[in-house]
Formats: sequence, structure tokens, C-alpha cells
Amino acid sequence: DSNLKVFTLSSNPELAQEITETIGVPLGKSSVQRFSDGEIQINIEESIRGCDIYVVQSTSSPANEHIMELLIMIDALKRASARTINVVLPYYGYARQDRKARSREPITAKLVANLLETAGATRLITLDLHATQIQGFFDIPVDQLVGVPILANYFEKKNFEDIVIVSPDHGGVVRARKMADRLKAPIAIIDKRRPKPNMSEVMNIVGNIEGKTAIIIDDIIDTAGTMSLAANAMVENGAEAVYACSTHPVLSGPAVERIQNSKIKELVVTNSIPLPDSKRISKIKQLSIAPLIAKAIVHVHEQRSVSRLFD
Amino acid sequence: DSNLKVFTLSSNPELAQEITETIGVPLGKSSVQRFSDGEIQINIEESIRGCDIYVVQSTSSPANEHIMELLIMIDALKRASARTINVVLPYYGYARQDRKARSREPITAKLVANLLETAGATRLITLDLHATQIQGFFDIPVDQLVGVPILANYFEKKNFEDIVIVSPDHGGVVRARKMADRLKAPIAIIDKRRPKPNMSEVMNIVGNIEGKTAIIIDDIIDTAGTMSLAANAMVENGAEAVYACSTHPVLSGPAVERIQNSKIKELVVTNSIPLPDSKRISKIKQLSIAPLIAKAIVHVHEQRSVSRLFD
Ligand SMILES: Nc1ncnc2c1ncn2[C@@H]1O[C@H](COP(=O)(O)O)[C@@H](O)[C@H]1O
Ligand SMILES: Nc1ncnc2c1ncn2[C@@H]1O[C@H](COP(=O)(O)O)[C@@H](O)[C@H]1O
Repeated sequence: DSNLKVFTLSSNPELAQEITETIGVPLGKSSVQRFSDGEIQINIEESIRGCDIYVVQSTSSPANEHIMELLIMIDALKRASARTINVVLPYYGYARQDRKARSREPITAKLVANLLETAGATRLITLDLHATQIQGFFDIPVDQLVGVPILANYFEKKNFEDIVIVSPDHGGVVRARKMADRLKAPIAIIDKRRPKPNMSEVMNIVGNIEGKTAIIIDDIIDTAGTMSLAANAMVENGAEAVYACSTHPVLSGPAVERIQNSKIKELVVTNSIPLPDSKRISKIKQLSIAPLIAKAIVHVHEQRSVSRLFD
Repeated sequence: DSNLKVFTLSSNPELAQEITETIGVPLGKSSVQRFSDGEIQINIEESIRGCDIYVVQSTSSPANEHIMELLIMIDALKRASARTINVVLPYYGYARQDRKARSREPITAKLVANLLETAGATRLITLDLHATQIQGFFDIPVDQLVGVPILANYFEKKNFEDIVIVSPDHGGVVRARKMADRLKAPIAIIDKRRPKPNMSEVMNIVGNIEGKTAIIIDDIIDTAGTMSLAANAMVENGAEAVYACSTHPVLSGPAVERIQNSKIKELVVTNSIPLPDSKRISKIKQLSIAPLIAKAIVHVHEQRSVSRLFD
């Protein structure tokens, strides 16, 4: 269908390329450059009048640059008479700023939703939102894809004997449950508690992990503090081996070093955020979401239901 | 009036401080920090319920960071029940992307206007917009202050004998005319022409500059290419001395070096954009707009007309 066009911006050019190859369309021609003062200059270099556009961009670090680039691109597409502007946002930056944790804080995840709509987005295709509530921040349709099957498939092939799926906190239990169902495994939950104010947290494990291969799952792995502490706690409590997996490899600050030095045997992530060479260590395995996204784009474009892509 | 509060963000903290001292109010308490992954974390550290807020921020380089910071701050102020949110934007980034110069280009100046309104800005106070049309991009009130009087006052005190005000292009004639009226001087215009395609531009000077002190005026001085070429053309055509002035010192790339090596005796700018130490050379004189902005804030707050601040 020559009406379907996929454009990339700077966050995930390789993912976008893989998506277009899977769908069997050429990558849309556009350029993203910088003026001398650093302002973004975008030009769309082919006619898109009346087309259904899919723009691939994660608002990963540098989040503000990636957000502005995306908004400017949407503006250009709108003015160039695109029929629909479907934002493919594998990683939703600012998703953790989704509520007022303290008074007089912004709710930046909602702000970003409003900005995308104001610029002219007509649909959002995203993956594993930090909070499902973010879907409700939008008035346009949101398709949320799920990364668990991709991660679960990888572990299935390992044919581990006796596994347990571990949620690093109470908020992640639903995700761990999904993973456990796919791998026909029990779950365990880490119950972090501060015995007294100013005392460091104690990692209390709810569930049986003794002698088992533990797979810790989280949506985002950022500084890897929780993940590596959890892994060490697993080993101390008798786990046979510890694996970790996470959809979005933010991996900021000391993350890579912490993973390297932790008891984690392997960390499995997706390419919702690409890894620079400095973060490509042998312990980190990156799986591609391109087939999933390509399928979602085709389904949306042919107006078939995306819901069965959830599992 | 304890209802009036001035907050600063990261672009111009010194200007904001000077503004609050001029008005006689303390600077609003807030913090702008970064999470480990670079996302902005803003917190407003005093109650602002029912207050009229003035947020000082230029969307100068890094423009995208400064824009996002401003939008997130507006979101936080809105959710903290500010009565009005007045954005004080001395330098409007992306103002040069104000029309489609080529097809399928964005109009980022309009996008930024929409973003500010979507976030919750209720008024804009700005200075020397690159194109006055940008006022029409907003549905909220816009007060545009004028920098010419500040620049003109400086030159008045020099008591030059025989001066001419020079516009570096046809688009800047209105600005040069205003300056010339204040200094009771004639004007000259640089008429750039390309004699043939692929031949370099020729600077043809319309007006008499021989033996005069030329003062070139522009709104933005960015890479300083035009400004330094113009200055040299002035000298070649018999100007006695050449000064330059500009409201907004973007000064990107080779700008400072070019000014240093040019025939310009002195470049006079404002602090709508602060200059880092690397750009503070003795040839560049920076004048403060704090008194002008302070006056505008007080006038807006007391609901008096701002129009007489235009001259
Ligand atoms: N980029 C970020 N990095 C680390 N923490 C964040 C970030 N954005 C928001 N937060 C904080 O994370 C908390 C929400 O995380 P969670 O409880 O996992 O939903 C809030 O207290 C936020 O202030
Ligand atoms: N940040 C920038 N730096 C240099 N040129 C720009 C910038 N933003 C926009 N432009 C270009 O400047 C031109 C408009 O400038 P002007 O003709 O002076 O209004 C357009 O062709 C824009 O593409």
C-alpha cells in the first residue's frame, strides 16, 4: 500500500530500518539537521499528501531533544497534508512523572501527551507504558504493545528446569504474573521495607526461590540499583542462578557497571532504546521489537484489531 | 503586592535576580534538577495558590532543553493553582522558523506558541520578536517590548558627530528607522545581490556613509557573518568608524572570532541571552534589560498599559 509511509527520527534509526524491511516499504525520505545555534531543522523530502504516516521515535535520553524533534516532525507532517500521523513511541520518556508524588510537582507524562496531540498526532503506538493510566492521558487512540512475550520466548528456549519469576516491587506483580503464566512458573515478590527511618532498606522475599533459577522482570531498568540489589538478595537466599529482564534499557549513570559487578548472569532487554557501544557488554542481550512493531503498523493500517498483539 | 511572584529557570538566572531586585520582591523558590537519565525534575518550593506568576526564561541555546524546562514549569504552576502564568521570554527561540520557506517544512515558531498555550501560559511578555507576526500565533495576550531605546541610549551618550544607522537587509529597515529617529540620524541600507547564480553576493550600499560613524542594527546576531561582512563593506566605502548593535546575542559557531577579526569597533547587545565567559570579549558590550522587564511586569500586574514601554 503506497499510502503507508514510515519515517524515522534520531532515536532509533536502525529499528525503523528493520521495521520498514519487515513491512516491505522504503524508509521515508526526510532530514533532521541542526542550525548553527543548535535549533532543529527538519525537512520532509518526498510528497506525503494524503498518506498514513508512521513516525518511529523513542523519547529516550536526551529526552527533551527527542521530544522536540518529534513535535517538530509532527508539525511538518501536518502542514504537508498527511492524512494520519501515527506516532510509534517504543519508549515513552517522562512516564515516571505520571502523578504528583509531592505537592506542586508537574505531571510531565500528561504534559507530553498534550504536546503530542497539540502538534497533531492522531494515534499513538507504544510499548509497555510505565503506568497503564498514561493511555488515559490521551484523547487520541493509543495502542499499547506488550514486551513480555518477546522476553518470555527468549527464556523459554533456554529450557531452564526450575524457575521462578520475580517482581522487584509490588507495582510490578501484574507484569511478573504474565511472564510466569507464559513460562508456567511460580512468582516471588521483593518486599522492600525500611525497618526505621534513616535505616537502609531490607529486601524481604515473599515466595520460594531456593534452588531455583530466578528471573527478575521490570519494565524499565535505569540506574540498575534495585535490579542488582535484588539479584544479590536472590543469591543470598539460595537461588541457583539469577537472570534479569526489562523492556526498556535506560541504563543511566552507574547502571552498566552495577550489572557487570552484580550476581546477574544475563540481562535481557529490547531495542526500544538502542544501546551505544559503551553499553554493549556480553552480559546484556538485546532483542528486537521490530517484528512486533511492524505487525502493529500493518494491523493499524489495515484497520484490524491490534489487541491480539498483546500476547 | 504579595500576589506577584517571579520565578527563574536556567537560561537567565542573573537577569531574573536583577528583575526581582528592581521590583522589590524575593525570587520565587523552586528547583530545577535532573534525574539520572537526564529528565528534568522541577519542584516549586513555596505556595503559589492564587498568585500571579512571572516565569523568566529565554529559549536560547540549548533551545530544546529550555523550551521543555519552561513547559514543565508551566505545568507545575498550573497544577499548583497559580492564578495567572505570565511567561517572560526575552529571547524567543525558533523565531526564524516562522514560515514555510520551502515546502514540507515545519513552522516551529507557531508550534512553540501552541505548546506554551497548551501547557497553560496565560500571557507572554517578550522582546523584539524576529517577526512581529509571531504575536498572531498566540491566542493569549502578547506584550512585545522594544530594545531599540536601550541600544539608542547607549550610543547617544557617546556623542558621535556625524552618524548613520545601517540596516543589514531590507527586512530590518523599520528597526533602523526607529533607531535613526531616536538618534536624529539618516539611514543607509545594505542591498545584497547575487549578480549571477553561483557568484558570491555583492554588498551594495544604498545611502551616504562617507566620513560617517556607521551603526549597524539587527535584531539577532547569530554567526555574525552578515554583520562582519557589512562592517567591512562600510569601511571600504569610506565610513569613518563602524559600530554594531543587536538585541539578541545568539553568537553561535564562529561568531565571536568573526567579530574580533572584523572592522567592528564595538558590538552592543542586551542580556536577553546571557554570555558565557568564552564570549565576553572587550569588543562586546552587554546592556541590561532588567529595568525594562521589571517595569513591564509591574505595569502588567497593575493592569496599566504596557504600550508606552515601546519607546
Ligand atoms: N527519570 C526519572 N528517573 C528517576 N526517577 C524518576 C524519573 N522520573 C520520575 N521519577 C520519580 O519516580 C517516581 C515514580 O516512580 P514509580 O514509583 O516507579 O512509578 C516518582 O517519585 C518520580 O518523582
Ligand atoms: N536557528 C536558525 N539559524 C539559522 N537560520 C535559521 C534558523 N531557524 C530558521 N532559519 C532559517 O532562516 C530563514 C528565515 O530567516 P529570515 O529570512 O531572517 O526571517 C529561513 O530560511 C529559515 O530556514
